[in-house]
Amino acid sequence: MKIGILGYGNLGKGVECAIKQNADCELVAVFTRRDPSSVKVLTPDVPVVSVDDIESYVGKIDVLILAGGSATDLPKQTPEYAKLFNVIDSFDTHAKIPEHFANVDAAAKANGHTAIISCGWDPGMFSLNRLYANCILPEGNDYTFWGKGVSQGHSDAIRRIEGVKNGKQYTIPVDSALEAVRSGSNPELTTRQKHTRECFVVAEEGADKAKIESEIKNMPNYFSDYDTTVNFISEEELATNHAGIPHGGFVFRTGKTGWDGEYNNVIEYSLKLDSNPAFTGSVIVAYARALNRMNNEGTLGCKTVFDVAPSYLSPLSDEEIRAHLL
Amino acid sequence: MKIGILGYGNLGKGVECAIKQNADCELVAVFTRRDPSSVKVLTPDVPVVSVDDIESYVGKIDVLILAGGSATDLPKQTPEYAKLFNVIDSFDTHAKIPEHFANVDAAAKANGHTAIISCGWDPGMFSLNRLYANCILPEGNDYTFWGKGVSQGHSDAIRRIEGVKNGKQYTIPVDSALEAVRSGSNPELTTRQKHTRECFVVAEEGADKAKIESEIKNMPNYFSDYDTTVNFISEEELATNHAGIPHGGFVFRTGKTGWDGEYNNVIEYSLKLDSNPAFTGSVIVAYARALNRMNNEGTLGCKTVFDVAPSYLSPLSDEEIRAHLL
Repeated sequence: MKIGILGYGNLGKGVECAIKQNADCELVAVFTRRDPSSVKVLTPDVPVVSVDDIESYVGKIDVLILAGGSATDLPKQTPEYAKLFNVIDSFDTHAKIPEHFANVDAAAKANGHTAIISCGWDPGMFSLNRLYANCILPEGNDYTFWGKGVSQGHSDAIRRIEGVKNGKQYTIPVDSALEAVRSGSNPELTTRQKHTRECFVVAEEGADKAKIESEIKNMPNYFSDYDTTVNFISEEELATNHAGIPHGGFVFRTGKTGWDGEYNNVIEYSLKLDSNPAFTGSVIVAYARALNRMNNEGTLGCKTVFDVAPSYLSPLSDEEIRAHLL
Repeated sequence: MKIGILGYGNLGKGVECAIKQNADCELVAVFTRRDPSSVKVLTPDVPVVSVDDIESYVGKIDVLILAGGSATDLPKQTPEYAKLFNVIDSFDTHAKIPEHFANVDAAAKANGHTAIISCGWDPGMFSLNRLYANCILPEGNDYTFWGKGVSQGHSDAIRRIEGVKNGKQYTIPVDSALEAVRSGSNPELTTRQKHTRECFVVAEEGADKAKIESEIKNMPNYFSDYDTTVNFISEEELATNHAGIPHGGFVFRTGKTGWDGEYNNVIEYSLKLDSNPAFTGSVIVAYARALNRMNNEGTLGCKTVFDVAPSYLSPLSDEEIRAHLL
């Protein structure tokens, strides 16, 4: 399978690493909006190409993986490049998924292509687990917890505060809330009871730290509904101890079975990831394989993880997966 | 969707309860090899019919759910009834799945039917999680733990011992082994390190308890490779404290991502079920919905959970699941 990557940030690199781990995948080119000579990729002998020249790769790529951001890149890029290629993205603005789906579906269908949107771990593997568990336990409750991990949006919000030089924010699920859900007691949990937020902030010299801390803790939407801890550290300490982008989380469904709902059940799925973008890239590459197969079979238009039979993700034959994994 | 159940033991009852929880499902008849007048079902106004009269239900049932055992019932029943109906079973003899699949596939295809075999939680949901996790993390290790729960096979083995009146066996995963796997340390675990076995035995009056205990602990395949505890209790205590059929377990994949495998990842899926057959019945009913849709679309032959797109399990529309679960 011949793969192109558009965008070479953390996610683009994660996709590149995942391609290396899958023997049936070949990275053909990395496309960038930057000056190609300024971008160095890890894979030997793979060209970095200006996105202006991407049309010259039509027919040379089975799947184009879009590694841009959900805020401004993907709403334009995914429909646009679905005209030229089979495309896959990790669009994660939950509220705008129906609109994005419709745009990508129209472009892909009109041009004989197949697309998958919102592929990663949430949306993605967490969504799958919510769906499976809801279908199996129609009478029940859903719980999703995120972390411990770095929230890019919250880290950005900290860095926009006056006097802040740099910063990183961890979202942390509250252990007692996890245990309450796991026990099957179906607790009602407030935002504050589910997650805490921990901030590591590098202040500019002479900045008013008390003011920064107060601004963070009282920031609406981002922090004011949470118990937030603010730690001031040096730029050096931030670089040494907080360079990574770990993440993860938990999806639960607790529900009843039996004639009178007399039996409790707890379904739990969790991820613990040293690198959020590397794992997301790995999910995308597995689904790129499925996407390519679906297009070869004539299944066109936009799809999500819900539409993909699990066997399509595997490089193994149906006989092999039945014999070894069933 | 009109459903028939063949076999009315614990699993058949579990299926019946799951049908009650799904508004789009209707139980049409329960088929039995016993005298129908001796079988009382829970659902009002549903006939209990001799399996000898099952052919008269051709055209009246969308899916026949086979709730028999894997040892002798299903290898015959599933191919036989795939000639008359769309069928689904929970065949769980892992080593014989390829043979069973071939038999059912041939019968279903020759008669324009669709079948799903080996549907439940293991095989079933655990298999799905093994497949997804293997596709996402091609470089890694798999771990499956079962329990805490009742093993029917091991309980039967205890009851066959001379001097044993009744008994029940719990399979228990070892906490320290779970923690070692969860830490990402990729331990190599022996059979003994993964699970312990706890037995509750009712001895016949005057039986040699020391001999019973020794026979259990030294029984090859079943107990000799495990640390086993044997507790002698009264029939009354067994009935009061050990009447249920709870089960569950854990599926892990731990694997590397990154250019040089520098990032660790842990994927964990777990189930905690008050009733094994009620949960298995719930999984089967969700897949019966998918089976019916696939047959309506002209997808014929034998399938497994690997072949079913997740959206097919849901009574909701694709738009609804994208809007609410993605």
